[in-house]
Order: sequence, then C-alpha cells, then structure tokens
Amino acid sequence: MDIIGIIEKKKLGQELTKEEIQYWIDGVVSEEIKDYQTTALLMAIRLCGMTEKETFALTEAMMNSGELMNLNKIPGVKCDKHSTGGVGDKTSLALCPMIAALGVKVAKMSGRGLGFTGGTLDKLEAIPGMRIEINPHEFIDLVTKNGIAIIGQSKSIDPADKKLYALRDVTATVDSMPLIASSIMSKKLASGCDCILLDVKYGSGAFMHRKEDAEELAKLMVKIGNNFNRDVRAEITSMNQPLGLAIGNSLEVKEAIDTLNGKGPKDFVDLCLSSGATMLLQAKIFDDREKAVAALKQTITSGSALRYLKNFIKAQGGDVSYIENPAKFPTAMYKIPVKSLKSGYVSGIKTMELGLLSMKLGAGRETAEDLIDPSAGIILNKKIGDQVNKGDLLLTMYSERPNMQNLVSDVLNYFDLSDHPVPVPPVVEERISYNKKTKQFIYEKEN
Amino acid sequence: MDIIGIIEKKKLGQELTKEEIQYWIDGVVSEEIKDYQTTALLMAIRLCGMTEKETFALTEAMMNSGELMNLNKIPGVKCDKHSTGGVGDKTSLALCPMIAALGVKVAKMSGRGLGFTGGTLDKLEAIPGMRIEINPHEFIDLVTKNGIAIIGQSKSIDPADKKLYALRDVTATVDSMPLIASSIMSKKLASGCDCILLDVKYGSGAFMHRKEDAEELAKLMVKIGNNFNRDVRAEITSMNQPLGLAIGNSLEVKEAIDTLNGKGPKDFVDLCLSSGATMLLQAKIFDDREKAVAALKQTITSGSALRYLKNFIKAQGGDVSYIENPAKFPTAMYKIPVKSLKSGYVSGIKTMELGLLSMKLGAGRETAEDLIDPSAGIILNKKIGDQVNKGDLLLTMYSERPNMQNLVSDVLNYFDLSDHPVPVPPVVEERISYNKKTKQFIYEKEN
Repeated sequence: MDIIGIIEKKKLGQELTKEEIQYWIDGVVSEEIKDYQTTALLMAIRLCGMTEKETFALTEAMMNSGELMNLNKIPGVKCDKHSTGGVGDKTSLALCPMIAALGVKVAKMSGRGLGFTGGTLDKLEAIPGMRIEINPHEFIDLVTKNGIAIIGQSKSIDPADKKLYALRDVTATVDSMPLIASSIMSKKLASGCDCILLDVKYGSGAFMHRKEDAEELAKLMVKIGNNFNRDVRAEITSMNQPLGLAIGNSLEVKEAIDTLNGKGPKDFVDLCLSSGATMLLQAKIFDDREKAVAALKQTITSGSALRYLKNFIKAQGGDVSYIENPAKFPTAMYKIPVKSLKSGYVSGIKTMELGLLSMKLGAGRETAEDLIDPSAGIILNKKIGDQVNKGDLLLTMYSERPNMQNLVSDVLNYFDLSDHPVPVPPVVEERISYNKKTKQFIYEKEN
Repeated sequence: MDIIGIIEKKKLGQELTKEEIQYWIDGVVSEEIKDYQTTALLMAIRLCGMTEKETFALTEAMMNSGELMNLNKIPGVKCDKHSTGGVGDKTSLALCPMIAALGVKVAKMSGRGLGFTGGTLDKLEAIPGMRIEINPHEFIDLVTKNGIAIIGQSKSIDPADKKLYALRDVTATVDSMPLIASSIMSKKLASGCDCILLDVKYGSGAFMHRKEDAEELAKLMVKIGNNFNRDVRAEITSMNQPLGLAIGNSLEVKEAIDTLNGKGPKDFVDLCLSSGATMLLQAKIFDDREKAVAALKQTITSGSALRYLKNFIKAQGGDVSYIENPAKFPTAMYKIPVKSLKSGYVSGIKTMELGLLSMKLGAGRETAEDLIDPSAGIILNKKIGDQVNKGDLLLTMYSERPNMQNLVSDVLNYFDLSDHPVPVPPVVEERISYNKKTKQFIYEKEN
C-alpha cells in the first residue's frame, strides 16, 4: 500500500478500503505521510466525495488515532451535545445544568470560537477563575460529583482530527460533508459518551447556509453514531438570526444565567427545552417528550438548574459570586446604540455579519493568538418578526475599542425591514434519529 | 489576494485570473505558499480543469519564474524538439544532426529517463567523456559553431516547473492536460528557440494510452506556443511498439549511429524524416515537404549528418572513436535470447512492459540516485507485422545482472501473435499545426 496509489484511486472517484483509510490516518499521525500528500487527498475527497462506508472507516481511524476516554466509572447515562456553531449560541451553559439536574451525566469537551462563531470555552472563561484545562481523572471525578463538567478538548484525543483540521483550514477543504461528519463524530465517539445530541445549524449565521445541507450532514452523523452503537440524534435549527439576544462572552453568560432564573428569551428557552427533552429521552430518564419538557421547566422554577450551574462553575474554580450577581461582570467602556432610520417589521438579520461585528468589537479572535475581551459584544433589541419604529433601538454594541461608532451605518444594513408583519420563525425545525431495526431515519417536524 | 481564496475558487470550478495564477507561481518559487496548499490547488486543477486562458497564464507565469535563454546571438533559425517520452526513443540523436546539416540551429535542453521511458541525456552519457552540464554562454557558442548542442536543463530555467513537477509526482496529479502542457511549454518557451516540434506519443509504451488524449494535449501545446508567437507544431506518433529495434542507452546510441550510416530500422528512419521535414519547413529552409525529405536522405548518404553528430559529440567532450567504431561500446556480460514458443504474426507488443524490463536489466533508474548501466537493454528481432516461426528469436536481453534468465517466461507474454497476417502500422499518424489567421488547426494525416 502506498499513499500515491491511494490518492490516485480517490482522484478517479473510486472507493477506498478500510485498510487504505487506516494507512492514511496512521501516516498522518506518525507524520510519515507528507502534509502535501494529505492535502491533495483531502481535495480529492472534497471533489469526488466518500461513500458512507468510507466515512465510517475514516471516522473509526480518526477516533482510534489517540486515547479513548473511558467514562465507565461515572454512574448513569453519559450525554454529550455538539453544535455546528452559530452566533449567540450559549446553549450548553443553560442546557447542561438543566439536564444534569434531572440525572443526566454531562461529560462535555468543548471548543474555542471559530471565525464568526463563538465557543463555549471562551464564554466559560468570561467567569473569573474558571479552569477548563482539566486532566481526564479529575474530569471523571467532577462529572461524578456535580453531574456536569465542561473542559477543553484533550490533546491526546483524536490527534488525527487536529492535524487534518489544521490542513483543511488552509486549503479550502473544510466544506466537505464526509470530512465535517468524520471530524465531529470521531472526537465525540472518542470522548466516550453513551448518547450524543447534535445541533446542526443552518442559515445566514451558520457554516451551512442551506437547510438541505444541514439535513444531509445531520443524517450522515446520526448514521455514523449508530454504526458505532451510540444513540446519536440531531436537531436541525435555524441560524437565520442570532440565538437569544446576547452575542459576546460575558453577555452570553449573563443571558444563560437569566435563562436559568426564568428570564430567558423565548427562542433560546425553546431550544433548551427541545434539546433537553431529546437528551432526557436518549438517556431514558423520560419516555415522553411532554413530560421531559415539563420537568425541564421545573428545573428553572425550582432553581435546581441554577444550583447545578453554580456547583459546576465552583468545582472548576469559577467565582460563583458572578453567577449569583451577574451585575458583577464588568461592562465594556463604550456602549453604542444603533437606532433604526426606518419603520417596519424585521424580516431578516444578516447573522454572520453580526458575528463578524462582535469579533471586531473584541469578542472574537482573528488569529489564534488574539486575546478576547469578555465584555465586548452585542445586545439585540429587535429580532425577526418584531415591529420597529423609526428611532427604535435595534441593538447596542459593547466594546473597549474606540471608533466603533463608525460601524453604525454598516450595522443598519444588517436588518431587513418589511412593510408587512412577519411571523416569528421557530428555532428548532426538525429532529432526526435513526431506527436501526428498520434502517430508516425518523423525522420529527416541530410545529 | 490570498492562496486559500484561490484554491476555493478553483475548487468551485471557477476561472482563475492571470493575476491569481501569477500570485500562486510567485509564491511557489519564493516558498511563501506552502507545499500543502499548492498540492491542494494542483488536485483541484486536476479535477476541475483549466480554461485555455488559464493554461496560457500558467505557462507564462512558469516560463517567467526563472531565467530566459537568449539565443539571439546564434545566427539562423533556432529549433527545438520535445518528445512526450517513449520506449526506444533515440530520435534526437539521429534527427538533430540531420537537420543541423541542412542549416537548422539545434539548441536543445533534454531530460533524464522518467519511469519506463528513456532520456536523451542518459543516452548521450553512454558515450565516454560526454559533458551535458554546460553553462549558457558555452551552450550558445557550441550551437553557433557546430549547429547543434544538447545539454541538461539549466537549474535557473523555469524553477516553478521543477517544484511543481516534484509535487505532482508524489500526489497523483501528473495526469492533467493543462498541467502537462504548461510544464512542457513553459520550459520550451523559456529555452528561447524560434520553432518547436512536439512529438506527442500515445499507445502501450507512452504516458498517454489513447490517441484522443495525445491529440488533445498536442493541440493545447500548439495553441500555447502560437499564443506566445512561436511556430509550434506537433506530430502524433504511435508508441504501440518500441521505436526502432534497440532499447537501452548504448544500444540506442549505436542504432542512431547505424541510422546515420544508412542502416536504420524503417520506422525510426520514417520518424526522423517526418520530424526533420517538419522542422525544416518551420525553419523556412524548405517550403515543400518532399524536397525536405529528399534533402534529409541526402544528409545520410553524403555522410554530412554523421559528421555533424561527431562534431557535436566531440565539442561536448565525447570520445568520437565510439561513433566511428560503435563496436567499441562495451557489451553486457549476459546476453539472453528470448525465442517464440508459437508461430504467427506479431499483432501487438506490450511496450511499457518492455520499458520496465529494460529498467530491470539495468538501463533505467528506480530512484533518482540509481546508477545506469549503459550496456543494458534489449534488441528486438520482431516487430508488429513480422512473421514468427516457433523457435524464432523475438528479442535479446543485455544485462550485467545475474538471474535475468528468470524473466524469459514473462517476456514471452509481451508479444501478441495472430494467426493472420498483420499490416505494419505507420509511426507518424498525424501532424497538427495552427493557422493564426483563420484560428483553426491544420491536420495532416500520414498515409
């Protein structure tokens, strides 16, 4: 077997064998295969595709390229969730305590912000003292004790993915279904949870703009998970507007706390209830969605979710006084309101642009070395369906950087206004799972 | 401009601008663009293709990536030829002296053997003392004085091609029409000749197996040449059997000498006359093919071509006594006859296999560091159309290596025998040139 022959085969559109894919991934990790050969193969995969069988083999080879987390010591069903990334997506911060409060063990490895999207780790680090680099032994301990721990991706897990992702990022080969699916799923499978919920986002603020693409990716990942005997389900959710009202690290933490205090924005609460209920069904803690949703609501009214949040934050070194009194989070020096010049109904929001704006305000990184300003970001005042009168506040920008005032005229263009009323779109559009016996997907549309 | 955007564009099948291609090639040469980005782009080009406009731009950028040979000091029309490579292709050795004897200035940079095909430089070096590393100044001098010089590719010419070819070779991206055409033509254009004849080979012993592919490549290269105001013409020639009877370095040199002594095999003489006549027409030394062919034959009968060969060999340090007395070339230690086990008419010859056999016997390199044994090779006794009786000699293998006897049973399979007589196929099948005024190709079929 040799790598040139493997590239040749894929270039001609042929199916690679499991052994050939294993040979490649072994060579990537050992660095015996050159980066310039790997990127040629990645481009051939991007352009010629991969069969399901190949994608399974790639996922397995990547999963086995490093250590596998063994979560067996943690009693109960271990659940993980993964979002494909969006603007204002602070779901893990509110959802994980809610399901943990109902007995699900949440052992979650998260990532940093990528491009115009935020990352859970960056948000957690807005809380002073928070540690996210925790070794596997302590991680298992924390999940067992507090029902929840969220840490950074361990370096020893899935090194093949780290290498391949870095190369894809600089060779325009990110946008390949089999490569995206195997990248996400190999990490998730190696992380050792029993159940995984995938939040696959589409729209103007997601990496996939078309719903069909999100569905295709979701189905592929669900099938991969089931192929490896995990209960993997997916939700197709809209990212045609930011999730909730807050974008930016401490602003989003505050919104998550507000949500657990019963004051969350409706779309964000809806998503937490939908995802939470699915995960409770996966964990077999409930066998009925309605009951699961009711129980989730109860974790908010009873304050149990907030307690779980505080315990987990405390256990990872975070200063709980910020959770108890979110007004402690420092506010950015500059607070710039953006007011509408027209009247109408919000019919669209350029969501990626808002993500990029948030980066410019200081909430994201342009290079991996950039420091994040936790107080920077955006608070939206209007979302799709809202009526706007001339002079109404559309959003407020928060930044430590001067001259952000100059951005106002651009920001005005991020809102599309219609003369006619616009319905409020749902966040969760569809749920997808797989019936292994009938070998069919099960689709559940949200009303 | 950035390379990721350029790769992205090509990946989506869009046309790159001249500036984008220039930016890429500049980055390849300066090494500012990473090899792993270049190979991803090469694979995208292999799979998505390039327009003619892109191919012209790539050729121009590569051509200008290094020094340009200035042959203006050499009086007369400077001609070059290029063969896409085959088995037993010693054409330059006989053809160049023939046309030089008629006033064409031959300033030729040649290559080494590649895979199963031989290279002119390796053949020349079978002559003791022969120098092929010659600086541009002396090169121009030699062509002026002797009408002919054949040297190795100068390192300072077309460094982009060297870099790209090395990367293509290890990433299965060699077989791309625009990449092949721009690689060949950028070097040829940088070498500064006025006229270029391309011998584009197809068949079982060529890199292209299908005649249609050879025609497509030939037309693309002819058009590139004309785009840069050179008279570039092509011949489509068959490599469905070795050219002539000799394969291997000193064996081929001897066959070339024999040819200039009037004892050349018919197919090889035919090719020299066809290519020579085309080049004489290109150089405007004749305006009629028949007269040119007659003059070329005359260079053999008069001995003038052999004199030009001797002068050029001598000027480059070669021992002319080997040309005068080819029996001086050492004969290989082992001489293994392969005799037919059946009777019939030769209907096909597995030519690539004979090229590989010649490598095994010691005539080629498996890695760039391998030493060539100049005496190793094959002398064919039968070619397509020949009648064979059981026990007749098919070929003789020459090698310094022991145990080559074991190859005989394999070699027998390289000859296909038919029960019925088989016509002798022509070598030159078609000539292609381009009329710039009518913007049409001119096809000339050989009868």
